[in-house]
Amino acid sequence: MIDTPKGLRLHIGLFGARNAGKSSLANALTGQQISIVSNVAGTTTDPVEKACELAPVGPVVFIDTAGVDDVGELGAARVRRSLSVLEWVDLALIVLGGDEVGAEAELIRRAKTLGTPVIIVINQCDRRKPDAEMLAAANASGLPVVTTSAATGEGIEDLRAEIVRVLKDGTEPDRLIAGDLAKAGDTIILVTPIDTGAPKGRLILPQVQAIRELLDAHAKVVVVQEDRVAEMLGELKNPPKFIMCDSQVVEAVAAATPESIPLTTFSVQMAYAKCDIETLAEGTAALTRLKDGDRILIAETCSHHPQKDDIGRVKIPRWLRQKTGLDLRIDVAVGKDFPEDLTPYAVVIQCGGCVVTRRHMLMRLRAARAQGVPMTNYGLTICHLQGVIERVLGCHPEALAAYRRARG
Amino acid sequence: MIDTPKGLRLHIGLFGARNAGKSSLANALTGQQISIVSNVAGTTTDPVEKACELAPVGPVVFIDTAGVDDVGELGAARVRRSLSVLEWVDLALIVLGGDEVGAEAELIRRAKTLGTPVIIVINQCDRRKPDAEMLAAANASGLPVVTTSAATGEGIEDLRAEIVRVLKDGTEPDRLIAGDLAKAGDTIILVTPIDTGAPKGRLILPQVQAIRELLDAHAKVVVVQEDRVAEMLGELKNPPKFIMCDSQVVEAVAAATPESIPLTTFSVQMAYAKCDIETLAEGTAALTRLKDGDRILIAETCSHHPQKDDIGRVKIPRWLRQKTGLDLRIDVAVGKDFPEDLTPYAVVIQCGGCVVTRRHMLMRLRAARAQGVPMTNYGLTICHLQGVIERVLGCHPEALAAYRRARG
Repeated sequence: MIDTPKGLRLHIGLFGARNAGKSSLANALTGQQISIVSNVAGTTTDPVEKACELAPVGPVVFIDTAGVDDVGELGAARVRRSLSVLEWVDLALIVLGGDEVGAEAELIRRAKTLGTPVIIVINQCDRRKPDAEMLAAANASGLPVVTTSAATGEGIEDLRAEIVRVLKDGTEPDRLIAGDLAKAGDTIILVTPIDTGAPKGRLILPQVQAIRELLDAHAKVVVVQEDRVAEMLGELKNPPKFIMCDSQVVEAVAAATPESIPLTTFSVQMAYAKCDIETLAEGTAALTRLKDGDRILIAETCSHHPQKDDIGRVKIPRWLRQKTGLDLRIDVAVGKDFPEDLTPYAVVIQCGGCVVTRRHMLMRLRAARAQGVPMTNYGLTICHLQGVIERVLGCHPEALAAYRRARG
Repeated sequence: MIDTPKGLRLHIGLFGARNAGKSSLANALTGQQISIVSNVAGTTTDPVEKACELAPVGPVVFIDTAGVDDVGELGAARVRRSLSVLEWVDLALIVLGGDEVGAEAELIRRAKTLGTPVIIVINQCDRRKPDAEMLAAANASGLPVVTTSAATGEGIEDLRAEIVRVLKDGTEPDRLIAGDLAKAGDTIILVTPIDTGAPKGRLILPQVQAIRELLDAHAKVVVVQEDRVAEMLGELKNPPKFIMCDSQVVEAVAAATPESIPLTTFSVQMAYAKCDIETLAEGTAALTRLKDGDRILIAETCSHHPQKDDIGRVKIPRWLRQKTGLDLRIDVAVGKDFPEDLTPYAVVIQCGGCVVTRRHMLMRLRAARAQGVPMTNYGLTICHLQGVIERVLGCHPEALAAYRRARG
């Protein structure tokens, strides 16, 4: 009932041959019978994920990238996929002990280049020795190497200790959505429009997260729909520390709020919490330079069923065309796939990323930067189109400065 | 990500022989491939449940009570279980068309006695005719009868229309937890202590529901931990319409709040939303008459993993013994099972029931009343033990009157 959402769990990728004992290793670590298999074989292109508890780390997601030992055309595609998962997991366990075919050596090289935290696990030490060349490469890599047997339990506690050490040193955990802007006793107003079509009894995830963070900070949290903002401001003896609203009502809320009260949006705060707001603010300036025929990539990490007036697939494209009057070519990429070649695009507009890790978002940002393609996110784009971008960046002065520099 | 919680879905029980075509009927109705089977055969004693969408009704849960056709000792136990499920589902589909063995006739009789909305479905009409005696009994029952074939689609739309009609007339939907006490523009303070051990980024279900209901009502919702109540009251120009707090901090919040401001708790509101607060308030008076050797039943519908300081299993028993100084014998019933014989108990203390339907809670209340055993709930019990029961019942004058009458 109160599970930790996936986006807040550490993601651990399991890499290795089919018979390297990855599942039994995960079982030995968690003390659970985890079956990391696809429910519907052949229908999903994303790697298979399984949420569970890993003491003492806490809630994690194991991601299986089966098929490093696949051969042929399909096999090559799967190896590419494994390499792309390596870019965003918080930790990669490269498991030797099966029929290694050489892809492992490539994984180790890439992990070092990417800076992905890696532990090399020599598994099934009770049954067979890993390939001598592979072992030499592992030891020469400078990466931590642990020898285990899931069957006898040998080395499992060593591996657990190593996981704790590596995660402690090497991950980029999410920052808070709202909590970093508040301290005990502050009053904050959250503005959350309620879509009448939304499932009853629920709030969307970032809203719940923000309320929880502010309560954790012992702040006083006021939650209203957009039609009660002015009334609530009139009800308070002192102005709130800041107002945080849904992007879709930012124009109305900005109009109802004195300039002296700092204003931000959930989606702008996602840029801070899940990515790098300075670089995304800089990328937002690219929207001021769009011209006829430009291609834009909208990237949605969440493969939710598209809604009637879907923000990424319908509203943002419509607003972009309406506000600019330009003939734009807009592509949408859905799920964890992200095009390798971004150079056709004038700008990438990324969703908030509430279902993925910060590491995943930063990987996308690095990929765009490396190709010289500006990236922004949904919320910053909406604020730009509504003419309130400079105001909402007021809570993040360095991001505001980066935006102004890039805009020129 | 934003699914409707189970407790807010309508529950539809499927009753009938193993080969009556229950799964294919559910598939035909939902257009999904639903597999209503136990994940781990033989390890669960509760019936198997599957959440899905049933247009145009919305989110529902199908409950399979396989084994009406079982024979022998185990079979008899399963028939008893089917009969108990019949007591709390919102709608029973009794599916004929397989090897009926007579238990169906008993189900039909019981459903009529219980007042459970029922549709009799004569399924697989393309393949075989139902037993003539059974058909006569169905037609004589006065209950709606629909003839279908899941294979050809015949009658499926008739069945859907009948489901809509029966659910519209016959269910007892949940009432709102907080929304009925508020109107547009009201300011309400919710007090939600944060357990530092709770999963990060989350709020518990009734808190989210209450915030959402109050936003739906266009009220202004203030959410604070208990240490900010006095400060928040000082920050508002006008007193709030009411304060609703977690039961576990009701003593501190009552002390920080002027008597003129109405005060209730989440759990007291659950008594209203999920059950019958008047009868539960009346039952609370039984706590004033406890004596040495009395037996108490604590009933927890949610089979969550017990926490270290579990409210039902640890805290309430401890507080009861501390505050009364009596030698009490306290039993705990967990899950959807509810003892048939309640007569050994001086009082039943029921949880809020956030994961089950209102119909389920009312069934338990009726069972207790029929045996002359008083029933209360967690929140009312805590308020009684903290000496604030009359104050929190101030929001529900008839319940307060019932409590005073019963207390004498």
